[in-house]
Amino acid sequence: MSTDPFGAIYLQRRLSSEFALADHIGVRVETADDTGLVLHAPLAANANYKGTAFGGSLFSVSVLAGWAWLTRYLARESCEADVVIQESRMQYLRPVCADFRAHVCLPADVDVANFRRMLRRAARGRLGVHVEIRAGDSVATRFEGLYAAAMRPG
Amino acid sequence: MSTDPFGAIYLQRRLSSEFALADHIGVRVETADDTGLVLHAPLAANANYKGTAFGGSLFSVSVLAGWAWLTRYLARESCEADVVIQESRMQYLRPVCADFRAHVCLPADVDVANFRRMLRRAARGRLGVHVEIRAGDSVATRFEGLYAAAMRPG
Repeated sequence: MSTDPFGAIYLQRRLSSEFALADHIGVRVETADDTGLVLHAPLAANANYKGTAFGGSLFSVSVLAGWAWLTRYLARESCEADVVIQESRMQYLRPVCADFRAHVCLPADVDVANFRRMLRRAARGRLGVHVEIRAGDSVATRFEGLYAAAMRPG
Repeated sequence: MSTDPFGAIYLQRRLSSEFALADHIGVRVETADDTGLVLHAPLAANANYKGTAFGGSLFSVSVLAGWAWLTRYLARESCEADVVIQESRMQYLRPVCADFRAHVCLPADVDVANFRRMLRRAARGRLGVHVEIRAGDSVATRFEGLYAAAMRPG
């Protein structure tokens, strides 16, 4: 078992306690370590009448994946900051007809370093995070989210 | 009472029966007529721990508003077509701290006419729809969705 204090168990607890919708749409943290972050969600709670996943659910799981990655990063840096989504783009490439996973595409080290520097200097910073929804082996959606983090006062 | 066969009651039934998530997030069709389309949603089911609306919920209500407008348009045209979201952009301008509404910004007549022509000629067409979330009088998010419609076979 992992002893990472900011791994899957930590993030699952934060998602479930901080977002009213997270448990309802069945988001489960599958992987959260230095190699990546993957959320899993079931089709049933997120389906439309055609038996494919609703675009709003695919977006929600994607935006939570980016949030979880940033929340883990900030926790590991002992950085007391809140993260919110500021802008996003989403492309729907193919329908999702089964349970699905949201994979965070790790941000470039240089972008993360700039983000960390801005947080130190200005108490706020922004970072773009890319997330792919995969169903089986194929990429079904591509999400680009620009997140803003702000240090908590005090 | 309105006697519009494709008004609020018709769209509410379609939303509730076609999207597993719609009732859970409390989406209610407030207005659906030639002057516009407005969906309403409660904060409680869509809140995060800070008492503001979750970005995924704001997106979901926006994407459903665009879908509902197109679904109403196609029904009125006696056009048997399915509508899906293909691409989207969303800007989050300010937090939403109360129940909120998604207002469809009516597409330009020329764009709707092109969309209708493509559906007739090629059995498929695409239309961009803009939706604003408003809480009180201020615009909280701006959504641009590109929707694809495809005629049902037969």
